[in-house]
Amino acid sequence: MLYPNGLKKNYNHTVHYGNRGMNLEEDINESNLFYRTHNIGIIHKKPVPLTIAKVEFPSRREAVVREAYFKTPSTTDYNGIYRGKYIDFDAKESKSKTAFPLKNIHPHQLKHLESILQHGGIAFLIVRFTTLDETYFLKADDLLSFIETTERKSIPITFFRQHAIPIPNKIHPRVDYLKIIDELYFKGGYRE
Amino acid sequence: MLYPNGLKKNYNHTVHYGNRGMNLEEDINESNLFYRTHNIGIIHKKPVPLTIAKVEFPSRREAVVREAYFKTPSTTDYNGIYRGKYIDFDAKESKSKTAFPLKNIHPHQLKHLESILQHGGIAFLIVRFTTLDETYFLKADDLLSFIETTERKSIPITFFRQHAIPIPNKIHPRVDYLKIIDELYFKGGYRE
Repeated sequence: MLYPNGLKKNYNHTVHYGNRGMNLEEDINESNLFYRTHNIGIIHKKPVPLTIAKVEFPSRREAVVREAYFKTPSTTDYNGIYRGKYIDFDAKESKSKTAFPLKNIHPHQLKHLESILQHGGIAFLIVRFTTLDETYFLKADDLLSFIETTERKSIPITFFRQHAIPIPNKIHPRVDYLKIIDELYFKGGYRE
Repeated sequence: MLYPNGLKKNYNHTVHYGNRGMNLEEDINESNLFYRTHNIGIIHKKPVPLTIAKVEFPSRREAVVREAYFKTPSTTDYNGIYRGKYIDFDAKESKSKTAFPLKNIHPHQLKHLESILQHGGIAFLIVRFTTLDETYFLKADDLLSFIETTERKSIPITFFRQHAIPIPNKIHPRVDYLKIIDELYFKGGYRE
């Protein structure tokens, strides 16, 4: 099993910071903390899925995992509740200036997003083109219909510019995606 | 950091099976798989939260976690969507015949359940008294009001028998908690 893209960032110090000084995952974590702290919405990142193979107990009250393997995630990374609605999304970065490669999304993640839509949830991707410093909110409906209607292996940036909603860089929260949800699903502001 | 109760079950073979041949976590995982397979609801268990300290790369395409520590969970273990509603719960086992010790629930898990209620989600605990082979659906509202109105360090079994809803053992799904949600929150059956 491959290790998830960008995971290295979490445990060493070779992170190459993007234009805004942070990567997308950190920006979203900060935004989720902002939302929770201000009681706007309760959205968390799920832990990285691991298969634990070996655990040691150096003392009676301590446990150290000594062998574990990364699993292919069966869902997206983020979910929670906002304005009574179930929210579900994944966040992806791409260095490309022209297109977002679809190999970044696992087939069961697509299936998962489709199921969430069927059950009445709000499902989407947040995609950042790091080189362009452009971040987009792409509804799962649009993602899925793109995939159904084309054989392409990537989504061109022009598709994002036409069909997705740009998320501007902000200070606090850094990636204010719930504001996009206000506009798309609630026809108006919750916070102004 | 202590390792979570019962985690050992996941990686060695010293499991002492209960009356029904499975533990509560396995029963709920089987039930969630049943719900997903039959497209009834999309509910997953979150991965165990770990802080990864060291990863080795035996080959270019392989990664092995060599050092990781269990983190105190900041949310509950299970969430998802059912009939358009956000669902959030934790599952706990107790060997006691008389009471469920509140030390089994972390303070931030209580806070989390409270937040979910505030935002319009369905929040609850599934508690199994393994020695008695009794499983209950306890609404988060009832859990929180119990804690607010008493100094007790445990919830007596009599409280469960009066205020919680028994979940009968079934074959498929083993713990049919969505049926309880039908009765409590939707005034009636979705499946019959």
